[in-house]
Formats: sequence, C-alpha cells, structure tokens
Amino acid sequence: MAQPAIRVGILGATGAVGQTFVRRLANHPWFSIAALAASERSAGKSYRDAANWLSSRPMPEAVADMEVVPCTPDAVDADLVFSGLDSSVAGEIEADFAEAGFPVISNAKNYRMAPDVPLLIPEINPEHAALIDEQTWSGGGFIVTNPNCSTVGLVCALRPLVEAFTVEAVQVTMLQALSGAGYPGVASLDALGNVVPYIGGEEEKLDEEPRKILGTYADGAIQEADLAVSAQCNRVPVRNGHLACASVRFSDAIGPDAVEDAFRTYESPVDVSALPSAPERLVVVDNAPDAPQPRKHVYAGDGMTVTVGRIQACTVNHVKFVALSHNTIRGAAGGAILNAEQLVHEGRITPAVA
Amino acid sequence: MAQPAIRVGILGATGAVGQTFVRRLANHPWFSIAALAASERSAGKSYRDAANWLSSRPMPEAVADMEVVPCTPDAVDADLVFSGLDSSVAGEIEADFAEAGFPVISNAKNYRMAPDVPLLIPEINPEHAALIDEQTWSGGGFIVTNPNCSTVGLVCALRPLVEAFTVEAVQVTMLQALSGAGYPGVASLDALGNVVPYIGGEEEKLDEEPRKILGTYADGAIQEADLAVSAQCNRVPVRNGHLACASVRFSDAIGPDAVEDAFRTYESPVDVSALPSAPERLVVVDNAPDAPQPRKHVYAGDGMTVTVGRIQACTVNHVKFVALSHNTIRGAAGGAILNAEQLVHEGRITPAVA
Amino acid sequence: MAQPAIRVGILGATGAVGQTFVRRLANHPWFSIAALAASERSAGKSYRDAANWLSSRPMPEAVADMEVVPCTPDAVDADLVFSGLDSSVAGEIEADFAEAGFPVISNAKNYRMAPDVPLLIPEINPEHAALIDEQTWSGGGFIVTNPNCSTVGLVCALRPLVEAFTVEAVQVTMLQALSGAGYPGVASLDALGNVVPYIGGEEEKLDEEPRKILGTYADGAIQEADLAVSAQCNRVPVRNGHLACASVRFSDAIGPDAVEDAFRTYESPVDVSALPSAPERLVVVDNAPDAPQPRKHVYAGDGMTVTVGRIQACTVNHVKFVALSHNTIRGAAGGAILNAEQLVHEGRITPAVA
Amino acid sequence: MAQPAIRVGILGATGAVGQTFVRRLANHPWFSIAALAASERSAGKSYRDAANWLSSRPMPEAVADMEVVPCTPDAVDADLVFSGLDSSVAGEIEADFAEAGFPVISNAKNYRMAPDVPLLIPEINPEHAALIDEQTWSGGGFIVTNPNCSTVGLVCALRPLVEAFTVEAVQVTMLQALSGAGYPGVASLDALGNVVPYIGGEEEKLDEEPRKILGTYADGAIQEADLAVSAQCNRVPVRNGHLACASVRFSDAIGPDAVEDAFRTYESPVDVSALPSAPERLVVVDNAPDAPQPRKHVYAGDGMTVTVGRIQACTVNHVKFVALSHNTIRGAAGGAILNAEQLVHEGRITPAVA
Repeated sequence: MAQPAIRVGILGATGAVGQTFVRRLANHPWFSIAALAASERSAGKSYRDAANWLSSRPMPEAVADMEVVPCTPDAVDADLVFSGLDSSVAGEIEADFAEAGFPVISNAKNYRMAPDVPLLIPEINPEHAALIDEQTWSGGGFIVTNPNCSTVGLVCALRPLVEAFTVEAVQVTMLQALSGAGYPGVASLDALGNVVPYIGGEEEKLDEEPRKILGTYADGAIQEADLAVSAQCNRVPVRNGHLACASVRFSDAIGPDAVEDAFRTYESPVDVSALPSAPERLVVVDNAPDAPQPRKHVYAGDGMTVTVGRIQACTVNHVKFVALSHNTIRGAAGGAILNAEQLVHEGRITPAVA
Repeated sequence: MAQPAIRVGILGATGAVGQTFVRRLANHPWFSIAALAASERSAGKSYRDAANWLSSRPMPEAVADMEVVPCTPDAVDADLVFSGLDSSVAGEIEADFAEAGFPVISNAKNYRMAPDVPLLIPEINPEHAALIDEQTWSGGGFIVTNPNCSTVGLVCALRPLVEAFTVEAVQVTMLQALSGAGYPGVASLDALGNVVPYIGGEEEKLDEEPRKILGTYADGAIQEADLAVSAQCNRVPVRNGHLACASVRFSDAIGPDAVEDAFRTYESPVDVSALPSAPERLVVVDNAPDAPQPRKHVYAGDGMTVTVGRIQACTVNHVKFVALSHNTIRGAAGGAILNAEQLVHEGRITPAVA
Repeated sequence: MAQPAIRVGILGATGAVGQTFVRRLANHPWFSIAALAASERSAGKSYRDAANWLSSRPMPEAVADMEVVPCTPDAVDADLVFSGLDSSVAGEIEADFAEAGFPVISNAKNYRMAPDVPLLIPEINPEHAALIDEQTWSGGGFIVTNPNCSTVGLVCALRPLVEAFTVEAVQVTMLQALSGAGYPGVASLDALGNVVPYIGGEEEKLDEEPRKILGTYADGAIQEADLAVSAQCNRVPVRNGHLACASVRFSDAIGPDAVEDAFRTYESPVDVSALPSAPERLVVVDNAPDAPQPRKHVYAGDGMTVTVGRIQACTVNHVKFVALSHNTIRGAAGGAILNAEQLVHEGRITPAVA
Repeated sequence: MAQPAIRVGILGATGAVGQTFVRRLANHPWFSIAALAASERSAGKSYRDAANWLSSRPMPEAVADMEVVPCTPDAVDADLVFSGLDSSVAGEIEADFAEAGFPVISNAKNYRMAPDVPLLIPEINPEHAALIDEQTWSGGGFIVTNPNCSTVGLVCALRPLVEAFTVEAVQVTMLQALSGAGYPGVASLDALGNVVPYIGGEEEKLDEEPRKILGTYADGAIQEADLAVSAQCNRVPVRNGHLACASVRFSDAIGPDAVEDAFRTYESPVDVSALPSAPERLVVVDNAPDAPQPRKHVYAGDGMTVTVGRIQACTVNHVKFVALSHNTIRGAAGGAILNAEQLVHEGRITPAVA
C-alpha cells in the first residue's frame, strides 16, 4: 500500500528519548521529520550543535543541519508530534499541542493514567484508541501514550497469559538499564560495578499501568484488569535492556508448558504486517538455559520484540519466567512510533491537505 | 579470654575461596596458618608463585614464602582444616581428612545436605553442631559446612522472621556478584554491561538449603523447616555482594513495621562477643531509599553483616525487602571461619597437645 | 558490475573471529558462505549447535542449520577460504589449504611477517598483493594476511602522514577492547573496573607490522619502512574499539594543521567504490574535544573507518592524536573480507568453473 | 614522639575529596576533626544528613552527628584547615582563611602555580615549604598545595630518575579513574564500556606542575626544572587509580636496568618514619608482567605508594614504564594530609595555645 507522507515533529528532540525518535524516524517509510523542537536554550541552533548525540551510530545526515525550533505549536509545522519531553514540562506543552489540534504521541508519564487517554500497545489493546473520542481539547487534537519502559516488557509478556488464563497476581523484580534514566542520568560512580535497588516512582507505575493496559474498553472508558503486580526495581550497569524476573499466580494450577504454549501461540489483534515498526512476534520464547540476556537478545525484532526465557514451575506462585525488552525502543520511542502507525492505519491520523 | 593458638590448614589455598581464607586468617587472634594445601600442580612452589593473587590488598607477607603442600592428610600438620576446594574434588579429599581425624570446616557444597553434617551459621542454628556426634569417620574427624553464597544472605534475613512469625513462602530474585563464580569464572564479554539470568544449580540450593538451616535439631537429626523458597538467580556485573530481592508470605497478615521490628530486635542464640569474626549484628536495617547497595554496604560488619532495606508492603505476598550480603566473606571464607570459632568456643575443636 | 558469486569457506567458523566473518558475509553481494569449518569437536553439528553465538544480533538464519565440517581441504568445497583460526593451529591448516590450491585470506598472525606473504590493507598497500606471485605452494594456492587488530588502526592513521611527510618515530599507547582477546578471553574479575597494562606479544607486533605494511614493494620483495614504533598496550573494559594515543616525530617540524590536512586529503590508491566493504574514507577526522570514543565512533564507516581526533602539537615529538578503530571489523574479519574483495577485483581470485 | 593533638577543619567536607579527608582523618594519630565546613546549603545539618556518603566503608561514627558549619573563618575553630573545595570557590575562601591566620592545606588547583605557594610532596621537595615565608597574608596564615591527581603519580615516578639522570622529555598517556572527576562526575552512559580521550585542563597541568615540583628552591623562589612533559589524558571506567604509560628521554642512553635501579634505591629527603601517612617507599617496582593494575595495586602503601612496572627499553625515547597511583589518596586527601604532617614535623604548624 502506498502511504502518503506524514510530516512529524519531535518535541524534546535533543534529549535521550528525542534522539531515539530521530534515529528511528530517519528512514521511516511513512513519516518524515519536519520539525525538531526543544527548549529555548537549543532553539535556533542546528540539531548537530544542539544535541549531545548519544548513539554509537552517527547522527542521520538529513537532520544534522535542521534548525531546532521552540516547543510551541506555532513553531511546529507537522501532521503529528511525538513527545520525548521530560515529565516536568510535558504536561503543559503536550496540552498546548493538543489544544492546537495536533495528535500528540507521547512517551511522557503525565497523561498515561488519565481516564480518556489511551495507554496503547497496538498488539495488546488497539481498541483503547477509541478513548481518543472522549478527549475534548478545543482545537481537536488528542494525546495517546505508551507505557513506562519498565512496564512494557512485563505487560507484553503478561498479555498472552491474561488471554489464555486468569492471572491473579504477579511478583516481579526488575533489572533496569542505565539508559532508562536518560542523560546524564545515573552517576558512573553509582553505576559501575554496583546495583541500586531503587528507581523513583517505578514500582508504583508497574503496579498501576498494567491494570489499565490489560483492561477492557467499553462505552468510552477502561475497566481496569483485576490483577495485582508487586515490583522491586533495580538499576543495573547495563546500557540497554530491562529484564523482568516474574512469577505469576493463576486462578488455576497452570504449569510452565501451558505458559510457554500461550507465549508461542499468541496472535496480535492487529495485522502487524501492515505496521512498519511492528515486529513479526510481540513475544518470542528462547529456551537456551541462559536466555534472555540484554547483550544477546535486546535487539530481537529490531528492539520491538520481548524475549522470554527460563519458564519454570514456581513453588510459591505457579510459573516464573524472565522477560527482556529494549527500554528505549519498545519501551519508549519505538513504542510511540508504532502507536502512531496504528493510528494512521486506523485513519485517526491523516496528512494535512496541502 | 586468652586463647591457645590453633594451627590451621587451608585446602585449595590457591583458589579464589582459598585466598579469602588466607586474607582473613593472616591476622586472626586464635588461628595461625600452618599449612597451605593445593593441587599437585602447585605443591612444592612458594605460595607467592603458586597463587594468582586476586585481591586488591597485598598478599600477607607471612604466607608468601610458605611452601604449598599437597591436599593429603599426611602432608598437612594442623589442628583443623578449612576447605575452599572445588566441589569436583572436595567430596573425596574432605572425606580423607575427616577419616584422618581432622575437623574439616568446609565451604564446598558436597556434604551440605548430608543428614549428619551441620549446615551451620552460629547466629542462627548453633545447636545443629550436635550433628557432628552422628558422624562416623574412622579417624574421629568431622565435617561442618556453611551455606552457598546465595543462600546465606537470604537465610540470615529470614531467621528473625521465622522466629517472630510463621513464614510460609519466599519469592526471591538474586542479583549475584562475579566473584561468586570463582576465577577465571565469568568471561568478561558475558559480564560487561550484561546480566545473565542463570547460574547453574543455584536456584535449587536456594530452595533446599534454607529449609535445613532453619530446621529444628532433635535426637541427632534435623527436622526441615516447612517453607517454600522459589528463586530466580542472575549474574550481574558487580565484583562482590549478592543482593536478594525477596517477598515473604506469612501465615498472618504481617506488615512492614513488624518485619522491620523483627530485624532490629533479633538476638543471636550465641554470645557473638566471644567470637572474633562475628559481627555485632547479624542483620542491620538501613532505611535510606536506595539502600542496600553492593558498593556502599557490602562491608558492613567487616563483610559479615547482612544489610536489609526497602522493607515495604507487598500486594502479592505480605512484605518485600532487599537484603545484601558479602558473598566471599559471610557467604564463604568468613562464614567458615566463624563456624570454626564457634566450634572452638564450644570445645569441639581443641589444639593438639604438643 | 554484476559479479559472479564466489563461494567461500570459513576456517575456525565457531570462534569469535569466525562468527564475525559469518555475520559480515551473510549478506555479502559477491560472496556466499559455502562451508563452515571448525575443530573436530564441532564438525558434524549444525552451526547453531556448534557455535556459542556472541553477537547481540541474531545468528543469520541462512547458516544456522549448515553442518560444520572439519578444517581440511577435502571437506571444504569453496573458491577461497577465510581463516579465523587461532594461531596455535593456523600455521599448519592454512598451509594445507594453500597446498591444496585455495586462496587463504587469513586473520591469523602466523604468516604475516613471512617475506612472500602480503600483509595487506587495500587502501594502503594494494601493490603488496604481488607478493602472491612469489609463493610456491604445490597446489597453486596462496596466503594473504591482514594486520593485528592493534596495528591496523595506527597504521591506517600513519599512512596519510607517511605519504605527506617523513615520519621518523611513533610513540603509542593502546587502550584495547576485550573482544580483541577472543572468547572466553579476559576473566571478568580482571576486566571489570580495571586496566591490565599487558597484552602478550602485542607490543612486538606494533613494532614490526607497520614497517612491513608501510614498506615498498619492488622485485618480489618488501623494503620495510624506516620507522620506529614504540608501543605500550593496555586492556580496558570496553567491548569493541581499540584506541591509539599516538605521538609522531617527523623529520621536519610538522604541526597539527598539516597533519589534519594530510588526514583529510588522503586518497586511497584503489577505487574504493568498487569494493563492497571499503568505506568511503579510510580515515575521518572528528574535531569534537572528546572524540573519538569507542562507544560513539567505533561504527564509523560500518566499522571500517578509522576516526582520528585530538590532533595537537606535542612538546616531546611533533604532533599527537588519538585514533580509534573497530578491532573485530577493520581489525579482523572486515579487513580480511576487504582483502578478498580487492583480490577478486584484481582478478587474483576467480570463481571455480562449474 | 608524643604529639600534641592538632585540631583540624575540613573545607568542602561534604564533597568527594572532603569525604576522603574525613575517612583518613577519623583515626589520625596527630589530627582530630574539629570542624566540618561546607556550603550554606549544608550548614546547620548533621554531617550524616548533609553528605551523600560515597565510600564503601561506613561513615565514621565520630563525625556523623557533627554539625556542618559554613566555610568562613569565623565559623571554624581549628589549628589548620584542609581544603577539598571545588576550584570555582576555593580561590576566595582559601584566601579568606589564610588572611584570618589559618594554615590552609589545599587540594584545589587555584594557588598551585602561584610563585610563593609550595606545590609540595614531602618525599620529593620538602625544601619548597620555605616558600611559605614569602607569603604575605595579613593574618599570618599560609597556603600549601598538593599536585593534581594525574600529575602526582607521574612526578613520584620521575623524581628518582631526575635525581639519578638528566631527564629531557616525557611522553605520557594517562588512563584516569572516574573518582578523579568527583561526584556526580562522569555520566554512566559515557563511562560504561567506554573511554573518553579528554579531561578538561588535565593535559596542561601535566605539562606545568612537574616542572615546578621538580624545580629547585633558592632565595625564596623556585627555579623550574627543564623538562618537557607531553600528555594525553583519558577517562577509563575504573573507580580508583590513575595509570601513567610513560616514555622518558634522557640526555644519555640510559637503559631499563638503570631506571629500575634508580626506582629501587631512591631515598626520600625526609624521614618518612616520622610522618604517619608516609609510606615506607614512595615508589615500588613490581616486575610481574601484568603489573601495575588499578584493582590489584592501587592500595600499595595504603594508597600512598606509587607502583611502577613494565620497565622496558623504548625505541623512540630511552625507557618506558607504567606507573599507578591512587588518585584520591596520594593524589588528593592523603597527599594533603602528608603535607600537613610534614609542616607539623618541621614546626611550621603548631597547636594553638589554649
């Protein structure tokens, strides 16, 4: 299907998440980067000068000389905006863009739990996009969010289980990568050869976001899933890749084979072949005894697939396993881009008429 | 109390655990190193030449020029032996020494679960030492073991809870240090910036060892504790310090304050002031939001105290917390030396008459 | 130019270098993998089972089910072989293949300094390929080598300077990545948070290889360049990327601007656009104050370009700079593949007639 | 010799250097901590609350409850002050204290190159202390400094060579630890698995400080040594320990044996046995092929001894070697404390009469 070009802006384009948006949008088949917006401090500079480029791959030539504009609707000429803004400013700025009529595809936490804002993962809850119709921004824009980077890996792994069985409770210990804290983020003296068993606000998000994501849409609202998640979040000296050591209690005595089978047979409710960023499989199982590992598996499905391994019977709950997701791709920019693709595919975002 | 000098041998003295024995015994008030025993390959060399010294502190001068002897009873002249042997050889060699009349204070796994061998932590189960009387080695020696390095931190944290409440089940995710794998151990390409969610045999030990350690001695046998432990073990790029993210289910609805109180008020059944290696407290609580961390807390109590933090209510079980222990001190050589001290204190080990 | 398919074998295919050959040949426009050869222990297994896959990108599907064959000429049906063999066995096996008529494109050190074996970098000394004509293997094969991974970055940076000026001496300190030691290579306890100021044999190679590479071909022999290189080699906890801190003494008082100009204007003697693995530029200059860094620049030119930065006047010699190269790509498999491409392009390697 | 207690204040007590002062002064035989001074933000808090304690060893109990005071002479009651202040504020505050009559033993860079301020290392240039007599602060105080943490290891290694031979030039590549950048210092995303070949201002200090330190005192001034040092400074992911890969050119053809002999026979001009923090040896030689390493040798002489290894002939200059020093001990707080000890020993600092 030939797709009309959609012109996109990136809010917070110089930050760590913004840079990941830039990298993944540089050669996107549907989207072209039309505006790079950042704080007043960066506005007016070339992107090359404004951004402290963090990736090991070079900055895409096409954006290096673009001029950074301020994060105001007037300054951004685009069909939609991606927001990689810090939560300290995202609330107001994203509202400004929605008021001004923009579709705002946000990675920030500010609106995730708002009752009329989808917390969207296309392969899991595409029907939640209907919440957009409940939003009442004056200019006709809307906001759609993706989950926190630590939530997303777990919830992708839980989705097949929730569909196949009744999940009652999940105990999870997260081993989270440094890039999840942005830049400069964690001090090297705290990170090198150390584990910090605390990430502010993260355990709370792991408790509440899955219930919304896995909830049921009806009549303009989400009925949250009845599911307890208790998390312990640790920062480990890994660059990319959040690892979830999870143990699940079901309503019945489900065993590891049934769980593996559920992972292997899960079918996404959307046609992933129509979405450029969607991986072939949301979840893959790797039965190697030492899988999944951040270094070896984090780029599965180009960073969009969650790798599950070490599926075992649990003597406390029913089944335990380890799930790995790429925190800045599936867990941030990649997830947001996939959300935008799904909204385009559904017809909720269209290119402006010239 | 003036203590007569006890002459000790170290089996496997050149390995990683053996070196920790050497470091901690070099200035011990009761024990003096009388023999360094290792494989045939090392025997006959000076310790300086035979050992690839791993510590950041220099090799104690007193041992550098000692000649390494073979691991045979004939070659070792000592009142007791510490065993830092690899499990592939420990079974036979330790038996040889016990047969030859030596008290064998072992860090190896081979005899830990044998019904007549104490799996000893003096501050937890000193009465288990009575199992020694059940051993029937021809020469009158005996074997006493300490727990696996991943078990020990968890079980020290559980002991106060088991005493105060009825613990039904424990879900635990371990973040284990590289030194737990010995030397050369984990390849740097596997360790650097990575997590490996698998350590062979470790999850099984975390299931069975706590039940024995926390069990009840009666009539020459241990009645195992009725307690399920389900573990997920990860190797993280940390040098020293195993971190346990644990969640505990009690028979009643116990909350975090009661758990913290149990940690703070636990009293060891032995008089720790009489044992040189015993820390003042088996467990300390640190309520800093980001405690405990390997880098900051692993040397609490000179590596013999377990630091507990992040005590919180758990929505799946009852209470969750994080416990940190030093895997090569409390979890290996330090724990074994403390066992020997307790056995000397009890009169089960005495210096040979000259 | 349509290129006939060249069928290649990989000797030592399961090792670290062999795996890099596999990754870079999997989608090569000229070469197709026809044989994966390894030790007797691996022979007969599928490549998936035989290789402990080290990369963070998945094993190419096309090779996963290929059967590994022994490293003998009879077992390998191919137009040329790449050798990623360990030097302990490369000497004999590579000779066997040359005797049997194979072009052997080797990454091993064994024949690098042999007078009739080219130590080849196409952008530097393509005329050295003529040494092949001096080789006298009975079956008509030949051996071509690429430099040691620590030599290559330095020598690529020196080549423009040798062309433009008279280089008398080079003082260099190498900061070398862990992957240069293969797998399992450096123990994590030696690597994590540490520097090891010693890599066996490496300082010697940095002294002798540049003189041959930068030497002059005439009448079937290489006249070595008159150039002293004194190196100090360190292993640092970096995954990929060797960093050379070099200081150069010229015959005249050359300054940093002239040096930068030489780097920027250097033109390769071969048409790099004809060679699929050749980067656009052998050397690029990055004037950012903190460039080059392994994490940010190691993939320049898809791992085939050397990045130079921090070009400054030196008060002891004349000019100092820092050069970064990818040790397993430009410094190993990528360099060897480029050599093969150049030999194909020159007509020294042709597909066997069917 | 019974030493009267000297009451000391620490300026910048909550910072990284200040914390090292606290740790090393907590049990000092001569000095007792009388005042902990820091910024207005910390003043009034207990030290426990004001300092983000960085060490792996617990905060000394004796200081935990001390109240932090402001960095003003009025607020500090002490016989001398140690300054761990950041250079952005050290210039003014240290001058205030000197004007108020305090001996100021500073680790900051601000006054190091001032003609009348000693840049002191007791085992190298104790006679430079006479510069104090040239200082003219109104209240009769004075300032004494110690070198930059990267200079100190190199200059300690050079001192024996300068005494024994004529050193003309030194080429050095530094591999510097993260703790040298203070806290939070280097971002973990820049440090983990990376090298940054740039440390602002460091290469310049390595050029100028050695010439002053190794210079000759006469008639109230220092005649700088005639010695070129050209440095390239890199940040490596090591916690503590700066490694200097140095190559030295002498006026004559000196070889490695003579250099090793000079290291081994160097005698300090002061009686180190009289100074509590002075190690037995300023420099030790370790001939192990892979020495010195940060992890293994950084605590030589309790962090005050420089370890030299890999002494080899250099084909560009004359002799090359590797020197390791502890950057926060010998290179900062430990060096400053040793300076104070020497000044007390000389009678330049005395306890105030009660």
